[in-house]
Amino acid sequence: MILTLSDIEAAGRMLDGKVVRTPFEHSVTLSEITGASVFLKFENRQFTASFKDRGALVRLADLTAPQRERGVIALSAGNHAQGVAYRARQMGVPSTIVMPVSTPFGKIGSTELLGATVILHGDSVSEGEAFVQERAEADGLTVVHPYDDPRIIAGQGTVGLEMLRAVPDLDCLVVPIGGGGLIAGIAVAAKALKPGIRIIGVEVESYPSMHHGLRGWSLPTAGPTIAEGIAVKRPGVNTMPVVRQLVEDIVLVSEARLEHAVQLMAEIEKQVVEGAGAASLAAVLSEPERFAGQRAGLVVSGGNIDSRLLSSVLMRGLVRSGRLVRIRVQTADQPGALARAAQVIAKAGGNIVDVHHQLWFEDVPVKLVEVEFVLETRDANHVERIMAALADTGMRPERVQAGHSRTNRPAPAQPAL
Amino acid sequence: MILTLSDIEAAGRMLDGKVVRTPFEHSVTLSEITGASVFLKFENRQFTASFKDRGALVRLADLTAPQRERGVIALSAGNHAQGVAYRARQMGVPSTIVMPVSTPFGKIGSTELLGATVILHGDSVSEGEAFVQERAEADGLTVVHPYDDPRIIAGQGTVGLEMLRAVPDLDCLVVPIGGGGLIAGIAVAAKALKPGIRIIGVEVESYPSMHHGLRGWSLPTAGPTIAEGIAVKRPGVNTMPVVRQLVEDIVLVSEARLEHAVQLMAEIEKQVVEGAGAASLAAVLSEPERFAGQRAGLVVSGGNIDSRLLSSVLMRGLVRSGRLVRIRVQTADQPGALARAAQVIAKAGGNIVDVHHQLWFEDVPVKLVEVEFVLETRDANHVERIMAALADTGMRPERVQAGHSRTNRPAPAQPAL
Repeated sequence: MILTLSDIEAAGRMLDGKVVRTPFEHSVTLSEITGASVFLKFENRQFTASFKDRGALVRLADLTAPQRERGVIALSAGNHAQGVAYRARQMGVPSTIVMPVSTPFGKIGSTELLGATVILHGDSVSEGEAFVQERAEADGLTVVHPYDDPRIIAGQGTVGLEMLRAVPDLDCLVVPIGGGGLIAGIAVAAKALKPGIRIIGVEVESYPSMHHGLRGWSLPTAGPTIAEGIAVKRPGVNTMPVVRQLVEDIVLVSEARLEHAVQLMAEIEKQVVEGAGAASLAAVLSEPERFAGQRAGLVVSGGNIDSRLLSSVLMRGLVRSGRLVRIRVQTADQPGALARAAQVIAKAGGNIVDVHHQLWFEDVPVKLVEVEFVLETRDANHVERIMAALADTGMRPERVQAGHSRTNRPAPAQPAL
Repeated sequence: MILTLSDIEAAGRMLDGKVVRTPFEHSVTLSEITGASVFLKFENRQFTASFKDRGALVRLADLTAPQRERGVIALSAGNHAQGVAYRARQMGVPSTIVMPVSTPFGKIGSTELLGATVILHGDSVSEGEAFVQERAEADGLTVVHPYDDPRIIAGQGTVGLEMLRAVPDLDCLVVPIGGGGLIAGIAVAAKALKPGIRIIGVEVESYPSMHHGLRGWSLPTAGPTIAEGIAVKRPGVNTMPVVRQLVEDIVLVSEARLEHAVQLMAEIEKQVVEGAGAASLAAVLSEPERFAGQRAGLVVSGGNIDSRLLSSVLMRGLVRSGRLVRIRVQTADQPGALARAAQVIAKAGGNIVDVHHQLWFEDVPVKLVEVEFVLETRDANHVERIMAALADTGMRPERVQAGHSRTNRPAPAQPAL
């Protein structure tokens, strides 16, 4: 083992009073929904809105005086960047953060606001690695690795200490895995304090790097995901052996589950949570039988989600749950036709939020016109009632399902042009 | 006084262990932004996501056995409904909730899920009053008033007890006002514990009922607001005298400030907060000089915001802060023209999120076409750089400001058709 409980306890003493001792709370409603007894560790309430703050502070505190003076450099598209930038500024250490060119503007801005010099380089985090190494050597900077460093791992492990101290009778911990720093630290702490506890990791289906790594598979990992925080192509060489020894299994979650989990965290817990931060809930939703009746501690690892992305996830959530639907009706191309359709919908209690007239491209007689309504409804039954009311007037309503739209707009949560 | 500190302390003992002792936390970033020392009381973390849970429990606990058996009725479009429904179900008391016909579906659904029978009646809360009275008499139900009841006021006042016990050296409390139950309870508790503390109320400009009531004005209050929770037309007869005696002043906040405050709570605090819940922050943002350097306790009264509304507020926030802009360019109506414009924008680092071709209605020569792009940008300077890059290619870019759109879409946070 590259670190022990006492390293993590030492990190905990060092962080005491300097990082937020985040809330760890039982969720009645999520417990009802999942069938597990769900406890949430809200690391989105950390100052830079993720657990990365912990490891960054432990690592920076270990710099020598000349290292502090020359400064640090880190490669990160997100939370590690903010953790390092914030703690470096606090300690008067210059920091340089290298981010992929495609990094959302919000994350670049937040990192600059925290005092870092941001350099955009390459198309992905992995492309930046060589660049960071070069710059570090050229400028005499110390590289702060996002996960593969025992000091970083010890810092992240304090999350586990806090969970078990607050609720000692937990049966299992559910922890997102990017490079593996968070789960490695938590597993070392938790297994030492309570050997019978089960540690379950979570990765997103498109980036199962630790899951595959443990099995010796070298399959490609790629694709767009809302869980950028755990979209890591290669597990850490220091973290993987810890995971192999202490982690029971890794659950792979789909994008749809991640989105649903982000939505539930907002609607039920009133918390803004990023994709990776909702991964542990997504895992419990994906495999309820695995967690049924268990007292499960879920790490809500971060809250740094772009406003536009959160907005899209919430709207798509309404679509998923049938509260936002598209209906198409055929009506005569003459004055009053739209008014009649709108009136029928209003009487049935539907709330029209968008209207789209189709004139040219439709497969209907030229004297008819297709009108597409986006409606807010109460639920699937309500949709049926509205459809029936429209059919009663002879308007031939048709439900437009996702993926069958003739207008064919891109799905909003995909990366934009 | 219709109640004293000891009533509120008794309510506090009764609620202890039954309602959530919500977090009360200092916000470093909101303190930097406002110039006050901001402490946030997160009542959005209460089980039904608002402080209303407190008063409802105190009131229901005071029912006689026959009253419990027959059940209760309440008039509410939102949080009071959920508080009463939840506590009634817990105590095995049947509950009927009367809501205006226009109540968002999400709120109706949540209230039904909590076990209440929901009746939709009338266009506004005030229209429902006579109806509730009738039903109560006809069916022998006990009316649970949302604010004008000393037991309700005592329950809400426990929020003030918790704030002052946690942070005794607060200089002022900033509290949203609907009917006045929350501020009356908090003011009685806080002024008794610390006579020098200042209590500042907050109302939304379109519903300044307490503000006007104290001055003897009877001006109309109306209009759409995102702060439905405090959009009350008439202050309570029991609460107004308390406010007159103990509240220093009432700040009126605009819709734009409320939206900005909801956005800041999501982006900075990672909390989902409804319009009324963000009113206290909106007040501090509106009148920074009044709160400068003060240790201010802000009541974040609730988190029940419709997902569609939150989504709109977040998107409008990006527009307000210049991170989402519309730009129109004139280009030749021929193959390759759109590709060229898109390429120039991409090179300048702008992210295209929507495109709109204008063909017929524009005041340009027929061989030219106007294309409108919605762009995600870093900030206002970035917009200027993109505009300059487009101008360099002869494309005559023009910024489309809100209110000057030729496409003239309705503002998304307005009530829909």
